Amino acid sequence: MSTFAPLKNDTFLRALLRQPTDHTPVWLMRQAGRYLPEYRATRERAGSFLGLAKNPDYATEVTLQPLERFPLDAAILFSDILTVPDAMGLGLYFADGEGPKFERPLRTEADVMALRAPDLGSLDYVFNAVTQIRGALDGRVPLIGFSGSPWTLACYMVEGGGSKEFHTIKKMLYNRPDLMHHILAINAAAVADYLNAQIDAGAQAVMIFDSWGGALADGAYQQFSLAYMAQVLAKLKRDKDGVRIPAVVFTKGGGLWLDQIADIGADAVGLDWTVNLGRARALVGQKVALQGNLDPAILFANPDQIRAEVETVLTSYGKPAAGEGHVFNLGHGISQFTPPESVSAMVEAVHSFSRAQRATL
Amino acid sequence: MSTFAPLKNDTFLRALLRQPTDHTPVWLMRQAGRYLPEYRATRERAGSFLGLAKNPDYATEVTLQPLERFPLDAAILFSDILTVPDAMGLGLYFADGEGPKFERPLRTEADVMALRAPDLGSLDYVFNAVTQIRGALDGRVPLIGFSGSPWTLACYMVEGGGSKEFHTIKKMLYNRPDLMHHILAINAAAVADYLNAQIDAGAQAVMIFDSWGGALADGAYQQFSLAYMAQVLAKLKRDKDGVRIPAVVFTKGGGLWLDQIADIGADAVGLDWTVNLGRARALVGQKVALQGNLDPAILFANPDQIRAEVETVLTSYGKPAAGEGHVFNLGHGISQFTPPESVSAMVEAVHSFSRAQRATL
Repeated sequence: MSTFAPLKNDTFLRALLRQPTDHTPVWLMRQAGRYLPEYRATRERAGSFLGLAKNPDYATEVTLQPLERFPLDAAILFSDILTVPDAMGLGLYFADGEGPKFERPLRTEADVMALRAPDLGSLDYVFNAVTQIRGALDGRVPLIGFSGSPWTLACYMVEGGGSKEFHTIKKMLYNRPDLMHHILAINAAAVADYLNAQIDAGAQAVMIFDSWGGALADGAYQQFSLAYMAQVLAKLKRDKDGVRIPAVVFTKGGGLWLDQIADIGADAVGLDWTVNLGRARALVGQKVALQGNLDPAILFANPDQIRAEVETVLTSYGKPAAGEGHVFNLGHGISQFTPPESVSAMVEAVHSFSRAQRATL
Repeated sequence: MSTFAPLKNDTFLRALLRQPTDHTPVWLMRQAGRYLPEYRATRERAGSFLGLAKNPDYATEVTLQPLERFPLDAAILFSDILTVPDAMGLGLYFADGEGPKFERPLRTEADVMALRAPDLGSLDYVFNAVTQIRGALDGRVPLIGFSGSPWTLACYMVEGGGSKEFHTIKKMLYNRPDLMHHILAINAAAVADYLNAQIDAGAQAVMIFDSWGGALADGAYQQFSLAYMAQVLAKLKRDKDGVRIPAVVFTKGGGLWLDQIADIGADAVGLDWTVNLGRARALVGQKVALQGNLDPAILFANPDQIRAEVETVLTSYGKPAAGEGHVFNLGHGISQFTPPESVSAMVEAVHSFSRAQRATL
């Protein structure tokens, strides 16, 4: 039995499970982050991004910061997407202003064949953070655990860092699909174990971020990203102490494949802002809930405009019918340059407009 | 009456107009470019990219270079996408290794209200290049003219250069849609005039590159990109000396909006590699031809793999029925790092496989 406090606000979990809610729940990808001055202060104290991400006290502190400001309906573990390949020994580091990089990317057949599943013990700092955050939340809202998708992790592992065109990994994919599948199978098992350990530690929902699935061609996406997310989902614990643990998958730029993504066994699918929510809802029916999809750039507009655009998104989805669910979110992580007041206006608008919408016939 | 030589190979134009062809025509976006050593040699002689693009002799030389190597079915004017805003006085320049920039981007209301249509006379170097290239082609294959879309030009004009997130222009779009529409109306008129002058100078088909339409949210795309491409198409000369001039529109990342793009009056729609060609064909029926959509990264694979992927694309489209048309292309410009031998393998495979495909029942 769980020793954590009972949930006071389960709106987010109910929406993911396509149960009725009295408003549309809202959270933001990267809601704990650089746009908040209090986050920047904590990071300053931590000395570095990894110093912050690897310390459960700091991770707890920043995870809770946005909840102090905004009435968000979920918290998400503060961590890095690349903890798993780091634990595989690839040597994660952050070059100044350049984003994440690996000291030992997978470039040769020997590199690939030497790849091993990570020692989950070396990721205890993540699981400890999950438990500590869940305790600190004290039942206010649910805690989301997360991982990069097998394909997205592989992009960083092979490219050695971020990429615009993904030529290195695509060259491997097309010339040596056997090596690509070898990496992805290891990643899928590792991601499933990693998410299951987060669930054991206290995560109440999990999300798989397929940030780079949209870089793949039709056909390649299904073989090299979607199939491995399906493997992860098949291995996930979906029940903890008798409570369903919903799983969300999000392929940025994957709107064209929504019907196929909705078929791999997730409870909900994330959508970016290029997708028409009304069309998406009609397409998936009662198969999955949907999460998204405001363009984060709208948070640079004035509050009146933000409210208008929130209403456009909520109207596009419409009032959820029985067996449907919608979680409001951005279509991508919030920009570090976002004024925090914009987030206030957005969250308030989501709550008030969606309550009014549910009151209509 | 045209004084140019009659066309020896009109396969490309026939496919755009959904007429029968004995093979699938093929050309490549950016086919005249840095992946060819002979291009790099010409650019060296020209001294700079703009020195090359603004000189009709050099532009003719590089436009014809890929045709000497590969049996391509079309040539495309060598020019820059930003000639029009340059002619509007924004001051185009190329910073070393940084891509195009403008000295005077549109940042204030005063900047926007001062924007004027370009003096087409200052773009004579483009129209002279079109006439000279058309003459030099001597009827081998048709010559494609092109322009950036009103929205894509506006992205560069407001951002002042390339951008990853487009925050500056999106802030204008959401806060001051009136200013955004003012820029786009001027751009649409300028693009139509620019393309019509290319048609007068000898272009046998035209293409509108909406490279950044896919950055827009659903809803914003229709208002701020698609509507202005429709304006351009409505003003285009579609007939020259009794010969139809086909127009192609291509929104990179616009696959989700294909049904709407197919409705604005273009003869053909370009598709990137995320789109399933078979689904796209079923969606557009006999309304437009389709152009695309091999992932350019496939050209880093070995020749056998390239041939296999070409067959996958051609099989995905299938054998064109009466009233349908397919032009083979990449889903984006060819990478500067592509081995020229890969292009040979690709073009040969498109021709041979598509001829065999047409011979089947």
